[in-house]
Amino acid sequence: MIIVMRSDATEEHLQGVVNWIEKQGYKARKIVGEEHTIVGIVGNDRPLSREQAERLPGVEKTVPILEPYKLAGKGMQQGPTRIPLNGLHVGDNRLAVIAGPCSVESREQIIESAHMVKEAGATALRGGAFKPRSSPYTFQGHGEAALEWMVEAREQTGLPIVTEVMAPEQVPLVTRYADVLQVGARNMQNFNLLTAVGETQTPVLLKRGMMSTMEELLMAAEYILASGNPNVMLCERGIRTFEKYTRNTFDVNAIPVLKSRTHLPVIADPSHATGHWEFVPAAALAAVAAGADGLIIEVHPHPEEAMSDGIQSLRPDRFADLMQRIRLVAEAVGRSL
Amino acid sequence: MIIVMRSDATEEHLQGVVNWIEKQGYKARKIVGEEHTIVGIVGNDRPLSREQAERLPGVEKTVPILEPYKLAGKGMQQGPTRIPLNGLHVGDNRLAVIAGPCSVESREQIIESAHMVKEAGATALRGGAFKPRSSPYTFQGHGEAALEWMVEAREQTGLPIVTEVMAPEQVPLVTRYADVLQVGARNMQNFNLLTAVGETQTPVLLKRGMMSTMEELLMAAEYILASGNPNVMLCERGIRTFEKYTRNTFDVNAIPVLKSRTHLPVIADPSHATGHWEFVPAAALAAVAAGADGLIIEVHPHPEEAMSDGIQSLRPDRFADLMQRIRLVAEAVGRSL
Amino acid sequence: MIIVMRSDATEEHLQGVVNWIEKQGYKARKIVGEEHTIVGIVGNDRPLSREQAERLPGVEKTVPILEPYKLAGKGMQQGPTRIPLNGLHVGDNRLAVIAGPCSVESREQIIESAHMVKEAGATALRGGAFKPRSSPYTFQGHGEAALEWMVEAREQTGLPIVTEVMAPEQVPLVTRYADVLQVGARNMQNFNLLTAVGETQTPVLLKRGMMSTMEELLMAAEYILASGNPNVMLCERGIRTFEKYTRNTFDVNAIPVLKSRTHLPVIADPSHATGHWEFVPAAALAAVAAGADGLIIEVHPHPEEAMSDGIQSLRPDRFADLMQRIRLVAEAVGRSL
Amino acid sequence: MIIVMRSDATEEHLQGVVNWIEKQGYKARKIVGEEHTIVGIVGNDRPLSREQAERLPGVEKTVPILEPYKLAGKGMQQGPTRIPLNGLHVGDNRLAVIAGPCSVESREQIIESAHMVKEAGATALRGGAFKPRSSPYTFQGHGEAALEWMVEAREQTGLPIVTEVMAPEQVPLVTRYADVLQVGARNMQNFNLLTAVGETQTPVLLKRGMMSTMEELLMAAEYILASGNPNVMLCERGIRTFEKYTRNTFDVNAIPVLKSRTHLPVIADPSHATGHWEFVPAAALAAVAAGADGLIIEVHPHPEEAMSDGIQSLRPDRFADLMQRIRLVAEAVGRSL
Repeated sequence: MIIVMRSDATEEHLQGVVNWIEKQGYKARKIVGEEHTIVGIVGNDRPLSREQAERLPGVEKTVPILEPYKLAGKGMQQGPTRIPLNGLHVGDNRLAVIAGPCSVESREQIIESAHMVKEAGATALRGGAFKPRSSPYTFQGHGEAALEWMVEAREQTGLPIVTEVMAPEQVPLVTRYADVLQVGARNMQNFNLLTAVGETQTPVLLKRGMMSTMEELLMAAEYILASGNPNVMLCERGIRTFEKYTRNTFDVNAIPVLKSRTHLPVIADPSHATGHWEFVPAAALAAVAAGADGLIIEVHPHPEEAMSDGIQSLRPDRFADLMQRIRLVAEAVGRSL
Repeated sequence: MIIVMRSDATEEHLQGVVNWIEKQGYKARKIVGEEHTIVGIVGNDRPLSREQAERLPGVEKTVPILEPYKLAGKGMQQGPTRIPLNGLHVGDNRLAVIAGPCSVESREQIIESAHMVKEAGATALRGGAFKPRSSPYTFQGHGEAALEWMVEAREQTGLPIVTEVMAPEQVPLVTRYADVLQVGARNMQNFNLLTAVGETQTPVLLKRGMMSTMEELLMAAEYILASGNPNVMLCERGIRTFEKYTRNTFDVNAIPVLKSRTHLPVIADPSHATGHWEFVPAAALAAVAAGADGLIIEVHPHPEEAMSDGIQSLRPDRFADLMQRIRLVAEAVGRSL
Repeated sequence: MIIVMRSDATEEHLQGVVNWIEKQGYKARKIVGEEHTIVGIVGNDRPLSREQAERLPGVEKTVPILEPYKLAGKGMQQGPTRIPLNGLHVGDNRLAVIAGPCSVESREQIIESAHMVKEAGATALRGGAFKPRSSPYTFQGHGEAALEWMVEAREQTGLPIVTEVMAPEQVPLVTRYADVLQVGARNMQNFNLLTAVGETQTPVLLKRGMMSTMEELLMAAEYILASGNPNVMLCERGIRTFEKYTRNTFDVNAIPVLKSRTHLPVIADPSHATGHWEFVPAAALAAVAAGADGLIIEVHPHPEEAMSDGIQSLRPDRFADLMQRIRLVAEAVGRSL
Repeated sequence: MIIVMRSDATEEHLQGVVNWIEKQGYKARKIVGEEHTIVGIVGNDRPLSREQAERLPGVEKTVPILEPYKLAGKGMQQGPTRIPLNGLHVGDNRLAVIAGPCSVESREQIIESAHMVKEAGATALRGGAFKPRSSPYTFQGHGEAALEWMVEAREQTGLPIVTEVMAPEQVPLVTRYADVLQVGARNMQNFNLLTAVGETQTPVLLKRGMMSTMEELLMAAEYILASGNPNVMLCERGIRTFEKYTRNTFDVNAIPVLKSRTHLPVIADPSHATGHWEFVPAAALAAVAAGADGLIIEVHPHPEEAMSDGIQSLRPDRFADLMQRIRLVAEAVGRSL
């Protein structure tokens, strides 16, 4: 951390800052500039409180030097984290494609979906049993029954199950069924939930909050990693902006930026990132071209009857067509599908 | 709901839309315009899915007419909800001021804080026992011990306790101690938590998510109301924008806008809304002038030693001074303190 | 400026950075930390390019220490800038209220408006002769004729004229008529226009761009000041966010924050900041409570017939009522009207 | 337009709305719902004022049905607009790549740049002669001298010139030299400038404002088209959001969404959209995969000495490498380079 003194700070203020630093076991190094003096802190600055420092008399501001995340950063691990999923490793050259309906609506619907996405080449099956819905009056998911139907779909197709867990007390239940635990965007900073999934060894698909910075996403991953679960996949699913023609704004920049800062795999969700099936293919191809390690795509056998997210779900034939196009772009950037 | 047909929609498309509406038990009313035909749906349109409608062939878009919240809206209750707190009713003419430290750091700290804010005229005591922190490496709160210290502070000062609950399974514990349950901004769409606090009768202070629209805030309140708890106070605490000179942007507009749409009281949190103690007084006075029913303000006996939020906490003398100024502005707008 | 070296930077990289600094006539001061070395630059760092520094091998990032604005900052002038307007000085204790219609629609309309706002106690008359409109098909203003009608209104009421100038080549024309030149939000970074109004001595009301930071607003003011015109008033008029219930989000925080950083007066525009007449009074009172030096408010004799901004214009009787309430809040915070 | 009446609107209110509609020469069509009555307006609703309607007694809100742009929309022209540029047509299958430095810094620099980008396969040369800079103290461009150096570069390489015009009065001068006039992001709603470039026949590259919706971008294009110049290319260059790890957020969604609404070509600017050279390739490839008709990329022979935007400029060797990768992705999505 660096502390910038105010231009009118006195010698006494400066000494107060130095004393505060030394009291906490660090060394202070001063640089006297023409307008401002700055004080550098030597030592691992992580546990020092910027807020306390900014309350000291004569301090104008503080500047952090180190990233606030450790385990998620490249300093701890240079090579990529590789997470096994249905015969491939997410984070390797080969792309993972997780596909299926937003909600598990019935036994028939999820089994039909599983066969269709399997046929088109998907790696895993998505489907919501517990649904976070902004209205208490809309469909909230079939719960454990839905998980059992997903298991049946897995038995028939071999596709592993990716499904959301919404509360710490649901973790034991969902872990019994799921191959990958999804933490939804609205729960990205539900720290109790992060700790709970971190205490399992089941891989976690951690979705970026719709108004969370990349740094906050990495800090949320840090919670899971620090709780003992190294199997975290990050998921960019669009952020909230002022633009109204799309449901969210797909932050495609996040793919290369996250890859430059973390060893964790990065998945993209073009369905939520656009909010409309018509734009899902373009966003999916953009994600692959930008270096995503995988995709999660909403596919519904009959989107016009979907109980949630029908507007952004692909019909199976359009999904199959998209998979062909994904393969071509993947190969153009040196990846495979 | 209104359905707008595409300009190239056929007669058959139109008939499909009419059939879909009638199949769900509503009546369709057409208006044939020069470029577009629109179809109005007569009946209570709440349970109809816009997403399904937008997937029908020939449909360009849908437009909701009714608000998605019922219990929180003025249609259900014209007069204000009044929530008893230490001898006044939040929502009445007299303002409530909830004050105290961000975190309960020690028995001494919270008791000292309680006496100081009581002396300055506060209505209730705030203090965090369970702390949502963006880093797993920072202070996470003293938990139940902190709640016991708060009870001691209440016994000495008579101030009711406002404290955060972070997970559904904490609700029974926190309810035993607290007079008001705070749901934090990061948990505003933690629907399991909303349901859990909705199943108590303890008043809830529901903070707006930093990334949430007012409509989403009202829908979150709806979850609590629909679960059976009518005692909800909304709290505007600043939203996330592109501006960097302040930690958040205080959406002061939310005060009159929410008051025009809901019967629930609206509290403002100038501490989070600005992120810096120097600007807390201006934001607090603005909130009162704009019609807030109360304030929640961070006050710490020694802000430069605070374990969290020191930078935005007022010193007790500054808080006492602010209370005088709040009184004057309250009276200027026909309220009292 | 401070330069933070990457944790894997070599001795040679460090030397390269030192050489670059010295080549430009500054001194380098190193602090060797456990993970990162940082290099402070001693000397006035304004002209050094952060972008060039960040391209040097081994550099992780740079951190600016000085604010990028000089003339607008308090370093240059501690006391407030005071701008004469109809017998008061904007920036002094007494508030200025600029009121009138969005557009000058006819001779009768502007003269009627002028008398009405004068009666209610306004300081100056606003009205648009040249209108920036997002559609080429909507009313664009009556141009010079409107300016002549405003002059007639001024002759009858004594109210000085505040009106927008949209392009550098309009400056000589508008300056002949106007007492205050308004630079609109969409033109806040029209640098040719800033320079053109900076070359006059007519006071300028500079509106913050709807998605401009406060720092950018101060830099825009710097353009005007650096061109020789010291008479700049800043205007907070709402910023663009994700919230949809209001046209803009009124950044009331900007009032105390700007006042802490600049000597220039700060005006608030509650009409644009809310976008709806029903919420204008709350926002106006909030602005005064937060420390604004004045207000600019849209008032129209017949808002339902207004050619622009009718929805956010107050009727004259409501404006007169608001003026009474403004007076009370102003007095509560030690100001006068 | 649809007008939604308040649930407590009276018969008299409704009649007032009908009268208002008929007075303006349109027909009113009512749909009486259980809670709200809505009134549809039959006729081309473009010139009706939503603001006036929303001021009528008993009106809750209005809903627009038609898009506000006509000439830019697909209703007017189904096939794509094709703009000739150096032997190809922007908007056709083959991609255009405009490359070169941010600013023209010297005769040597622009000529060296032109040869380098030509060698790598660029279609046109970019370079700024007039520079919009947020600080009045930074390099503002060499003006007409820079234009003359660009002409020399064009003579040597055959590359057409793309350069920014900042003010209406510069249009005649810049048009004498440039093959494409660039309107910068900060000027996207400088309506006088839009009209001025619209009165030429020189192709215009219109950059989306960092704070502008796609609808506003299309309306800005409408200004140019309505002034008589059909040769408009839209450019997505990143929008401003809360994210801080990148300079802007690249709205890659805008590419398919704009293509679905307009016949105008869509260009992407990965340099500004990321703000850092390291992320430019990923964003460039994503843009091509998403369907962009071309790219504009900052390339500088010596980025570490650039007078502006060095941090986001590619070195020529990296640009040449990127061009190879662009070609592969272009072919994967059925385009060519």
